[in-house]
Amino acid sequence: MLTFSLCCNTYCPSIFVNGSFYPAKAKSRRQRWEVKPSEMANNTFNPIRAIVDGMKLTPNPDKPMIALSIGDPTVFGNLPTDDAVLQAMKDAIDSQKYNGYAPSVGYLKSRQAVANFFSCPEAPLEAEDVILTSGCSQAIDLAISVLCNPGDNILVPCPGFSLYKTLAVSMGIEVKLYNLLPEKSWEVDLQHLESLIDERTSCLIVTNPSNPCGSVFNKEHLQKILKVASKHCVPILADEIYSDMVRTTNHPSMASLSSDVPILSCGGLAKRWLVPGWRMGWILIHDRNDIFGSQIRQGLVKLTQRILGACSIIQGALENILNNTPQSFYDNTISFLKSNSEICFNELSIIPGLNPVMPSGAMYLMVGINMDNFPDFKNDVEFTEQLVTEQSVFCLPATAFEYPNFFRIVVTLPEEMMVEACGRIREFCEQHGILHTKHAEP
Amino acid sequence: MLTFSLCCNTYCPSIFVNGSFYPAKAKSRRQRWEVKPSEMANNTFNPIRAIVDGMKLTPNPDKPMIALSIGDPTVFGNLPTDDAVLQAMKDAIDSQKYNGYAPSVGYLKSRQAVANFFSCPEAPLEAEDVILTSGCSQAIDLAISVLCNPGDNILVPCPGFSLYKTLAVSMGIEVKLYNLLPEKSWEVDLQHLESLIDERTSCLIVTNPSNPCGSVFNKEHLQKILKVASKHCVPILADEIYSDMVRTTNHPSMASLSSDVPILSCGGLAKRWLVPGWRMGWILIHDRNDIFGSQIRQGLVKLTQRILGACSIIQGALENILNNTPQSFYDNTISFLKSNSEICFNELSIIPGLNPVMPSGAMYLMVGINMDNFPDFKNDVEFTEQLVTEQSVFCLPATAFEYPNFFRIVVTLPEEMMVEACGRIREFCEQHGILHTKHAEP
Ligand SMILES: Cc1ncc(COP(=O)(O)O)c(C=O)c1O
Ligand SMILES: Cc1ncc(COP(=O)(O)O)c(C=O)c1O
Repeated sequence: MLTFSLCCNTYCPSIFVNGSFYPAKAKSRRQRWEVKPSEMANNTFNPIRAIVDGMKLTPNPDKPMIALSIGDPTVFGNLPTDDAVLQAMKDAIDSQKYNGYAPSVGYLKSRQAVANFFSCPEAPLEAEDVILTSGCSQAIDLAISVLCNPGDNILVPCPGFSLYKTLAVSMGIEVKLYNLLPEKSWEVDLQHLESLIDERTSCLIVTNPSNPCGSVFNKEHLQKILKVASKHCVPILADEIYSDMVRTTNHPSMASLSSDVPILSCGGLAKRWLVPGWRMGWILIHDRNDIFGSQIRQGLVKLTQRILGACSIIQGALENILNNTPQSFYDNTISFLKSNSEICFNELSIIPGLNPVMPSGAMYLMVGINMDNFPDFKNDVEFTEQLVTEQSVFCLPATAFEYPNFFRIVVTLPEEMMVEACGRIREFCEQHGILHTKHAEP
Repeated sequence: MLTFSLCCNTYCPSIFVNGSFYPAKAKSRRQRWEVKPSEMANNTFNPIRAIVDGMKLTPNPDKPMIALSIGDPTVFGNLPTDDAVLQAMKDAIDSQKYNGYAPSVGYLKSRQAVANFFSCPEAPLEAEDVILTSGCSQAIDLAISVLCNPGDNILVPCPGFSLYKTLAVSMGIEVKLYNLLPEKSWEVDLQHLESLIDERTSCLIVTNPSNPCGSVFNKEHLQKILKVASKHCVPILADEIYSDMVRTTNHPSMASLSSDVPILSCGGLAKRWLVPGWRMGWILIHDRNDIFGSQIRQGLVKLTQRILGACSIIQGALENILNNTPQSFYDNTISFLKSNSEICFNELSIIPGLNPVMPSGAMYLMVGINMDNFPDFKNDVEFTEQLVTEQSVFCLPATAFEYPNFFRIVVTLPEEMMVEACGRIREFCEQHGILHTKHAEP
């Protein structure tokens, strides 16, 4: 087809001129409607949704539903945020100072407050090292977006939080899963991790504490991970959204242990302050060796200008939220999660065919299913589906985290529901298991 | 180089197995740090920032600065939002019902409220036609992302809001600028628009009312634009963030005039409710001819799951904000903007060498500079730069909107400042102009 083209290029100056001469011949154009979703939309894939939507989830009408599946600590109403957090929000609204546009990286004052809150002698932070984002999800999105090109690969924990892969695949970035070892409290299989690195590896994601495992790496293990990153010059995205939601004493942040590996630490208010809907997140830029330099910083700033980040009211409240939330609030949440985790672990440990792994942080617990003991079910998806049908208890099959034959339990629900749920799981396992007494695990 | 690769593929099932056999030979890996920003970060370009950052903006110390450059109606403090809006927010906080994750497309109740607010007999809306987003910016981002692939092109008004190009170019989508005609109150040059369409044109963006022009298209003109879209089967992204901020009576929405062209109408609370920092936006899906069908809808839903959208508190307040804001609030804003626009237009019309174009909506006014009259300056950037140096008045050079030799004035400032600013512009033009009385414009 003969096409005649004029001024089609954005950068063609003649487009600014109000000319009167336009193509005489029609270009090749659409004759009928055919509007299709983009490749990116087609490649945006949420595995949790895909798996859950594919399950037949019809609870037993005789038993009230108990959902142990949702990583939202607010759903049961037993873990409200602190009054100081709510007051900070209302003060920000009343001040009428936070209705306008904030800078794309966030108010300076709020970035300063985050810097002060997380700064430590081994990993000092200034306001300019902080970028405020719309939830930790946007922090992760920006971090991957600035570090990776299509065709690059990133290293992602397995089992791990599904968003990394959802984002990466939608951007044409390859995901390589490195194994965590349940028998070592979900520490990284360092040899496996190292084996995956090649010259297109542009980012190592470390989730600590972990969703879905509830594991917390100790100092020595973090140092070993840093050594691998340092040896092969791979920057780290540390997803530390559950930082300080831990029940151990030896739990440093990644950045406090390294002076050479550049780290983007992603966090937010969602979990520790129990307000995931508010969408307040941040990136802490740790780069004491000047590897990221000004280029990565500027790249991040440019990316924040695309759609802007967190709501200005929450940004305005942030300083008071961080400074006025009493220590007892954090402590109470942690001790509640500890107690619930212990109940759950103890109850499930004695069930033949189930292998819970004791967590020490975050708000999750992973349970291995010895499938040989449950010949009625092919896999974790069938197991958890039938658990809903018979017992109205919903646990997320860990296939959603690329880790079949486990399921994840959320331990934020009220204690009596936790106990009830464990009892029902036990009844279910007794009815379907072929072993009836607990035996040594492989 | 010999490389030995195992388990590098995400979809390789062996990666799930906790194997002990790993590559014996090292792959090609990085030996030293070289962390560079991604192509996307490098290609994310904010023209306003680039131009403003490149300007020497040193105000005259003897005159207080008046910034007419920022499209944020809250900066002068004279246009607070309504008390009903603030109350709705505080009620949402106190209810403690909106701290958890909202669905990725927004709470059903809030989507229903938006649907009710914008539904009209010619363009009815249901809750399922509404997607809530983090500001109108994210609405635009999602709309472009779902409709366009890299290599496609989109049609963007010139002069126009710079975000379209920023987003598109960062995604590898080509931007074709279609001309607006200042002498026709910034109506679209329809012939030029049509000439740009080819088979890779996947979206026509129409900004109405316009930033930066302040123009409002009447029904007949909108119908002509729709006819072009219909003839060539190009879906429309209608940026209607300034809808109803108009001073004319004949100002229908795009969707109310078409039953065949599929339209994604993007809007939000930012401008009309005077709270741009809150990041509350939406997409209204108009598809009465079922051209988008379920595929585009599902594509949008999938894209919302990447980083989630608006803060849950604002979503929770949305129904009350839309239903309880008194009509007088909207009316007062409009009459204030009308009065200020008239003052500004009248004052600048009599200045030789300036050609203001009377707006009828939004909160902007564009002023043409007859450069021949100002031989001291090469272009709009130099003109506005020197205006800061001498008169401490900052107007945005329209080069930022790809429209040289114009500048944009924001008319949200207090009336006495508007008058003062116009007086200073006049003094400036008198000192630099070679014509001293107003003459007929070319
Ligand atoms: C490990 C991890 N990172 C990030 C997020 C996302 O956090 P946000 O809700 O702040 O986007 C979650 C949420 O569950 C998570 O578990
Ligand atoms: C035409 C237009 N569309 C969209 C936006 C962005 O709106 P929001 O601040 O809600 O993202 C603006 C902001 O100035 C605008 O002028």
